[in-house]
Amino acid sequence: MRKKLVLPTLNDIEETAKRIKPYCHITPVLTSEILNNLCNCTLFFKCENFQKSGAFKFRGAINALLNLSGISTEIPVITHSSGNHGGALAKAAKLLGRKCIVVMPENAPKVKIEAVKYYGASIVFCKPTLQSREDTTNKIIKEKGALLIHPFNDFNIICGQGTSAFEFLKIHPELEIIIAPVGGGGLLSGTSIAAKSLTPGIIVYGAEPREADDAYRSLNAGKIIPSENPSTIADGLLTSLGELTFAAISQHVNDIITVKEETIIQAMKLVFQYLKIVIEPSSAVALAIILENTGKFKGATIGIILSGGNVELAGLPFLNP
Amino acid sequence: MRKKLVLPTLNDIEETAKRIKPYCHITPVLTSEILNNLCNCTLFFKCENFQKSGAFKFRGAINALLNLSGISTEIPVITHSSGNHGGALAKAAKLLGRKCIVVMPENAPKVKIEAVKYYGASIVFCKPTLQSREDTTNKIIKEKGALLIHPFNDFNIICGQGTSAFEFLKIHPELEIIIAPVGGGGLLSGTSIAAKSLTPGIIVYGAEPREADDAYRSLNAGKIIPSENPSTIADGLLTSLGELTFAAISQHVNDIITVKEETIIQAMKLVFQYLKIVIEPSSAVALAIILENTGKFKGATIGIILSGGNVELAGLPFLNP
Repeated sequence: MRKKLVLPTLNDIEETAKRIKPYCHITPVLTSEILNNLCNCTLFFKCENFQKSGAFKFRGAINALLNLSGISTEIPVITHSSGNHGGALAKAAKLLGRKCIVVMPENAPKVKIEAVKYYGASIVFCKPTLQSREDTTNKIIKEKGALLIHPFNDFNIICGQGTSAFEFLKIHPELEIIIAPVGGGGLLSGTSIAAKSLTPGIIVYGAEPREADDAYRSLNAGKIIPSENPSTIADGLLTSLGELTFAAISQHVNDIITVKEETIIQAMKLVFQYLKIVIEPSSAVALAIILENTGKFKGATIGIILSGGNVELAGLPFLNP
Repeated sequence: MRKKLVLPTLNDIEETAKRIKPYCHITPVLTSEILNNLCNCTLFFKCENFQKSGAFKFRGAINALLNLSGISTEIPVITHSSGNHGGALAKAAKLLGRKCIVVMPENAPKVKIEAVKYYGASIVFCKPTLQSREDTTNKIIKEKGALLIHPFNDFNIICGQGTSAFEFLKIHPELEIIIAPVGGGGLLSGTSIAAKSLTPGIIVYGAEPREADDAYRSLNAGKIIPSENPSTIADGLLTSLGELTFAAISQHVNDIITVKEETIIQAMKLVFQYLKIVIEPSSAVALAIILENTGKFKGATIGIILSGGNVELAGLPFLNP
């Protein structure tokens, strides 16, 4: 099913948008005069925290499963995820009547473990290392013939994630800059392909925590340099780029900009306070790069993709310094 | 300007909706499968926390000021408010280039005092008693010739607040029940007039904290019984009905249902968690009456008006038991 190193095109993303439309929310776009004044630019926020399963990940997950329509639903799908991809795939599988197994590290956020359980998937816990995650996943694939749905390094996943920017730019073609957070790079890949094709002059930035800056270093080095023990409050951005997302981002993204942890927390609080919405720390990284670089963004019309809202309320970082 | 004991009609609310449209947001309606499953009914949430100034109050405030268009903008408007009406009037006055004075009790929530300041109105502090509030306001009216814009007991204010339910039922005519919180009764008056006229069979409930249950007692007694020292976490619902809102609610509302403080807090947490939005405690009271009466609401299609989102994040009650 997966086409190795063949990148999606705008046409693939447009077809995906039609395919997943009956299953997804068209997420709203919010604005705040106070945030515009504070940042000296015009900001539009695409709210994937309101997407099904609470994150953009559902777009890719449902697309990947719809592309399995010829394969018996008795054959389970499997993925490894510390977070939103697991919940999204579990929900998508439930909707389509397919079995789903999610391999999760023992230390995954409680709220994300509960989501996977709620949607009825089987969870297999592993040690919080890349090796344990891969070994556990491969063992189950071998034993049960499960089909791997990779969280980001997958053609259909990237197509799904790109539908958010596709919707966004159809409504706001005036955007001069679009910013998405980057972890494994599925969202940023899809965003950059959709944006550069729909609006050729647009500038696309990836926003990354300085404490998990593999995308920044990889793009500068011209080769994938995985993160080693990244540690950031943005728990959705710990993973490193894959070969497909590295290729897409190298080709379509203007730059990766990194930010400090304290700015991520500050941005998260501003979104709660002025947009009146609940986001997880990973979603705040895009606004954070504007806060750290107000001169660079002054006067621009900017689209920000808020990636998700699955956060442990008892541990909101701006309340627990 | 104010027509004493003449209640607005659907036509008045429809005209108001047209008048205020260039100034207000059409607020989104959100849903959550998880909340539907939890409550055993189908819930639609009209999100006034996304309205300008962060609360439905802006609808009434801008309408009241637009109705002053023949009067020199040099003549200031004045109101007394511990909360959202003050911020809303300040913002509306700023937009229309009119001076604004807000009388606030010394103990008003910090976040609401800051909003009034941000929008550029003058604040005059008073003691947190009805007497001090009225004396202070009347003194300024006498000295400066300021025009009083009452927070709720006012024809134009009620017309403005009714536009939320008007928008809501235009998009969701299938609602069988609509619920709004009740403090002074402006929102519930406007909601009930709009709802009963647009959808004659609809049931309208007011949701009220048990610790500030003047509307409940007033409706049962057939006369206004003001609250004495009400104490509830829902700081927007401390005021008692006025003669105009009492008349509207007596005529159009099916019942007032009261709830415990702990259920308000529980409802507030559920909205943060599953709708992914920031609301203030007063907004949570409507969902709270469903949580306390699941049998009564089972299977129904229900519209809830979430009144506002101006809350001190450092004091979220479900995190600070």
